[in-house]
Amino acid sequence: MTASPTAYAELERRYARLSHVGGARAVLSWDHQTMMPEGGAAARAEQIAALEVIEHELATDAALGELQERAAAEPLDDWRRANLREMRRRWRHATALDARLVEHLSRAASAAEQVWREARPAGDFARFAPHLDAVLALVREAAARKAQAFGVTPYDALLDEYEPGCTAARIDALFADLEAFLPDLLGRVLAHQKARPAPLRPEGPFDIARQRALGARLMAAVGFDFRHGRLDASLHPFCGGTPDDVRITTRYDEADFTSALMGVLHETGHAMYERGLPGAWRHQPVGEARGTGLHESQSLLIEMQVCRGREFLAFAAPIMRDTFGANGPAWQPENLYRLYTRVQPDFIRVEADEVTYPAHIILRYRLERALIAGDLAVADLPAAWHDGMRHLLGIVPPDHGRGCLQDIHWADGLFGYFPTYTLGAIAAAQLYAAARAAVPEFPHALARGDFQPLVSWLGANVHGLGSFHTTDELMARATGQPLNAAAYKAHLEARYLG
Amino acid sequence: MTASPTAYAELERRYARLSHVGGARAVLSWDHQTMMPEGGAAARAEQIAALEVIEHELATDAALGELQERAAAEPLDDWRRANLREMRRRWRHATALDARLVEHLSRAASAAEQVWREARPAGDFARFAPHLDAVLALVREAAARKAQAFGVTPYDALLDEYEPGCTAARIDALFADLEAFLPDLLGRVLAHQKARPAPLRPEGPFDIARQRALGARLMAAVGFDFRHGRLDASLHPFCGGTPDDVRITTRYDEADFTSALMGVLHETGHAMYERGLPGAWRHQPVGEARGTGLHESQSLLIEMQVCRGREFLAFAAPIMRDTFGANGPAWQPENLYRLYTRVQPDFIRVEADEVTYPAHIILRYRLERALIAGDLAVADLPAAWHDGMRHLLGIVPPDHGRGCLQDIHWADGLFGYFPTYTLGAIAAAQLYAAARAAVPEFPHALARGDFQPLVSWLGANVHGLGSFHTTDELMARATGQPLNAAAYKAHLEARYLG
Repeated sequence: MTASPTAYAELERRYARLSHVGGARAVLSWDHQTMMPEGGAAARAEQIAALEVIEHELATDAALGELQERAAAEPLDDWRRANLREMRRRWRHATALDARLVEHLSRAASAAEQVWREARPAGDFARFAPHLDAVLALVREAAARKAQAFGVTPYDALLDEYEPGCTAARIDALFADLEAFLPDLLGRVLAHQKARPAPLRPEGPFDIARQRALGARLMAAVGFDFRHGRLDASLHPFCGGTPDDVRITTRYDEADFTSALMGVLHETGHAMYERGLPGAWRHQPVGEARGTGLHESQSLLIEMQVCRGREFLAFAAPIMRDTFGANGPAWQPENLYRLYTRVQPDFIRVEADEVTYPAHIILRYRLERALIAGDLAVADLPAAWHDGMRHLLGIVPPDHGRGCLQDIHWADGLFGYFPTYTLGAIAAAQLYAAARAAVPEFPHALARGDFQPLVSWLGANVHGLGSFHTTDELMARATGQPLNAAAYKAHLEARYLG
Repeated sequence: MTASPTAYAELERRYARLSHVGGARAVLSWDHQTMMPEGGAAARAEQIAALEVIEHELATDAALGELQERAAAEPLDDWRRANLREMRRRWRHATALDARLVEHLSRAASAAEQVWREARPAGDFARFAPHLDAVLALVREAAARKAQAFGVTPYDALLDEYEPGCTAARIDALFADLEAFLPDLLGRVLAHQKARPAPLRPEGPFDIARQRALGARLMAAVGFDFRHGRLDASLHPFCGGTPDDVRITTRYDEADFTSALMGVLHETGHAMYERGLPGAWRHQPVGEARGTGLHESQSLLIEMQVCRGREFLAFAAPIMRDTFGANGPAWQPENLYRLYTRVQPDFIRVEADEVTYPAHIILRYRLERALIAGDLAVADLPAAWHDGMRHLLGIVPPDHGRGCLQDIHWADGLFGYFPTYTLGAIAAAQLYAAARAAVPEFPHALARGDFQPLVSWLGANVHGLGSFHTTDELMARATGQPLNAAAYKAHLEARYLG
């Protein structure tokens, strides 16, 4: 006679099903941004909305709440206990919204994203504004409902979806620490740079097929497994797909290979996290990445901490020269290092250097808090953007394409997401400092293009843990400290003033 | 006060939702065959199975049966009445199987297809056999249940899914007509060919990017709209996606461009049908293509009736020469025509000429009927294949890759599908003869690369009708006759003995 399945086992079955539908949606979303012809947009929006409604129905099934209560009384080991905790977190988020709101938000975001694709190159904010208005109204409705359900502010309720347990108060403190430090650092870095000749820029054009081959070659060096993933092109680079089929993208510029290449290595950091998630917990909440900030820490650790460093560039320089059949002083490792660590206040977040990047985030964080609070209207966003850029970086974008239209996030309904980029930068520095202290031979291995010791450390301390710990626990175990900006500040001073 | 929605309106809402999930699955399937890295197979199988189970749940919801009964009593115009008829047909098929069987079949087919991809080039039937066994057992179980529910034979129950209303008895009669005609015709054609010098074969290699550009150029001439579709490469050519995002594939050979090009034009015929389906009935059963045989008639009408004809090749020859920067006697329209109408018994169905193609179908039709009836075991399939090829075409394949492993259909659980290829060939000739009688200027337009008059006629008589008529009604209205092989036989005699 077979024992009847436990409540916990039934929960695993149900969450695996949810994961498969979510994986299907991830592939549709990847396709939308890389392969889909423009005339497929309306049907794709319907498909994605239909899957989101199904996921919402599965995630809010009343049976889940009862099963979670019964499972809490069953004997569970630590991982199952953590899995149940993550199931309850999802249940709380899912049941805060009704199916109608989820479907409307999905449709509005698909429509807004499609318009954004055309409005951005044209700098046409007026065309985009009504779509952003529609998305914002629905996001504010969702935030209000979650705020009421969780007993937190609307913005904290949104933040919790991307960075579980984090609050605006905590971000305010971390960002205040950075704001007290960065303007002065920026002045010193610019003076330091000015006292030295500018780095040389390799001269193009750079064939896009060769750029792609270079990116793929260095992805493989980091450890990306092409049997379980792809590299493609899209308007906005991203890491999508699923842990067994990780799909990253970049955008190419024939005149400059350096930006697309670091984009590839950045997304490779995300991909390594996804691919390294615990295989035994595939398709379960505890087997997923811990949060958006920690995800970003993995991309920034690879891109900023490692690949813009001297050791890696000494390894990569001859490969770059071979790829493009080029040579000369611009292609020497030290020149490439100075090029890849050049600091220059500019308009575009995704092209910003490490020293000015936090200013882009602080701007977006303040604007989206105001939008969610109802203190800023969409119509006033361009002016507020200009004011913020002038205040934070002393520059004003010449058009909206390089201003408030540059990012896809708000079109997609992602509010509460932006601060996680800088939380990730802070965590990346802290994790990398801990890793170097634990395994002193890293720099020598990286100079040989050998990422294995680093990837092993990350596997044991971050990737392979999935969502077993909270972010705070994970950071404390891996680094001995709570998340704080000390290592990040030390890294910036060493790299940009050294 | 709003009137409560009718039962019919609620049915439309539910079937639209089903269509969106089916559309999502179509994109996943396309991705599986064109883009997916091999390591993604297991997760993709889970995703597709999850969507199929959801579709099955939606399609078998008991409420649908009740709504259909209520809707039958509501006042409906002709299209809505036809839509309700198609809904009932689906309901009958869906409720004949339980969710467990649907899910097992989906998983078994995904696994079998993955193994087939490797077993086929290796000619390794032993490796594939247990997977085919597993698929066949589940298909037989499904056929038995449908047979009982519909009161027909198991094979007719399978056939009805692809070719609604068709029976093995009707196919037997049509195929007997062809069998009485084709062997004699083949002998006469081979003698006719032998009396003339063999056509010249353009010499390669042919760059694959240029082959793709040529295919895309001629697709556009036929009327394919790249804002609503794509052309990619896959192991087995197919037409997938959805009517607003039609995705066709081909496979390229550097040594010979002619086969991939006709593959592209064949799939373009399918694509034109999908794209031309009635937009007002998008996402409803009545808005979908009528059946597999009629679908094939549209690909064969474009490929066989038109693109292998003298008029089209006169238009295409200079474009081919320009694409490859080639010239000389092999590139003259009359030589290309003779090359594209060359008859030669061979092993591979998808490369077979029009005269020998029906033999490949008759072989598969007989073998799959025996497999379904339990009269043939999977282990005995290779020997039965060899016997059949020897009997029908007088040749025996040198390996299983060019024998019973060549097609993807059985791996995918498609039994009852093969005969529709020849039903399509018969219908293509009958429809094209009617079109030429109705609009005599076709040949002149085609010689200018102008497909518009033909596509208009097909739009009015086939594409735009969706599933409004039964196949028999559609053929009778478009051609004045029931489906019969007279036009097909006349076409073969005119083309291959003329």
